[in-house]
Amino acid sequence: MKKIQLEILGLSSSQSQSGSFALILGEKNGNRRLPIIIGMFEAQSIAIQIEKISPNRPLTHDLFKSFAEHVHVVILEVIISDLKEGVFYSRIVCSDGASTFEIDARPSDAIAIGLRFGVPIYTVESVLSEAGIILTDLDEAADESDEDEDDEDDEDDNDSPARPSRQPEPKEPSGQVSLDELTKMLAQALEKEDYEKAAKIRDELNKRNG
Amino acid sequence: MKKIQLEILGLSSSQSQSGSFALILGEKNGNRRLPIIIGMFEAQSIAIQIEKISPNRPLTHDLFKSFAEHVHVVILEVIISDLKEGVFYSRIVCSDGASTFEIDARPSDAIAIGLRFGVPIYTVESVLSEAGIILTDLDEAADESDEDEDDEDDEDDNDSPARPSRQPEPKEPSGQVSLDELTKMLAQALEKEDYEKAAKIRDELNKRNG
Repeated sequence: MKKIQLEILGLSSSQSQSGSFALILGEKNGNRRLPIIIGMFEAQSIAIQIEKISPNRPLTHDLFKSFAEHVHVVILEVIISDLKEGVFYSRIVCSDGASTFEIDARPSDAIAIGLRFGVPIYTVESVLSEAGIILTDLDEAADESDEDEDDEDDEDDNDSPARPSRQPEPKEPSGQVSLDELTKMLAQALEKEDYEKAAKIRDELNKRNG
Repeated sequence: MKKIQLEILGLSSSQSQSGSFALILGEKNGNRRLPIIIGMFEAQSIAIQIEKISPNRPLTHDLFKSFAEHVHVVILEVIISDLKEGVFYSRIVCSDGASTFEIDARPSDAIAIGLRFGVPIYTVESVLSEAGIILTDLDEAADESDEDEDDEDDEDDNDSPARPSRQPEPKEPSGQVSLDELTKMLAQALEKEDYEKAAKIRDELNKRNG
């Protein structure tokens, strides 16, 4: 399946889940956003790497890198490969020089590690079409002010959208809010760069359109 | 330097540092305790492993293990090798079959990983004599009720005693409390199994005796 490159657009603390953060990934050659809720530790590790802060002592992801270097293995790329039951899955693609192999990882770990190796972050169309939020050019412009930040994953090892989304359900309004209203709310949330709220609306829309 | 094997005796949430935990290590063939403050993530990862809980998705330390297995490297042991400026240092001893190598790590990571490989945890006399708390047989008995739990390390990558201890200072009472009173307080803290308080008193005693 065709890979779609992502870039980290922002990280904001979660209003709904204390100790969690919303990591905003964006389609590199497109206008879709992929908001993911991640744990504090993972957010910290990603932010530290993006801000080029070097901790006194190696964080777990730094330890992973130092170990990989000791065994002469390089990371080639990371890919957010799947979204099941509202949980994102990813793979770290490694090479020992002779052959490549992939390791199953939470997206937050994959991205925290990928950043340390300076490798590209990818996803696939199926994930982006299910969990992506489409921005208009207007929103795009508004977003340029985003600070760089990070990735996904819950402290309780559950990489999930702002609210774990279930499998798409039949087309029935699951709330009193109309699709039209939801769409307006989504636009407003994106204007305010409230990606967490946007992700919740996205999940609701997914349910109804599923 | 002679290695001293440690075992995990307990883990309790820190009263002074929200989100931190006090990991209690104990001398396997002795009566000294090594209390260390660790971060929530590390505590969680260690506790999950001790309790044999298997998370839906791999935690960062599980990812490390799966990576190590992919590259056919085994962990032989972990060692808490040093204590500088109140920060514990450790090493993960690895083998690729042909040769062994060591990786610098925070004790919490080293122990979380060591547990996953079922390898022994060691320290050295210099660390234990500086940061260890000696228990009497009476305290020993009281301690048998401890639950198993875990390791060290601050969320802010600073493996430290309950309060980061400074280099030992000249022999001058740095507070109004007398050495005798401190010693009694230490005994009381240990009787109540308040290891965090005990560790603070230990640091104060270290200062005065340094």
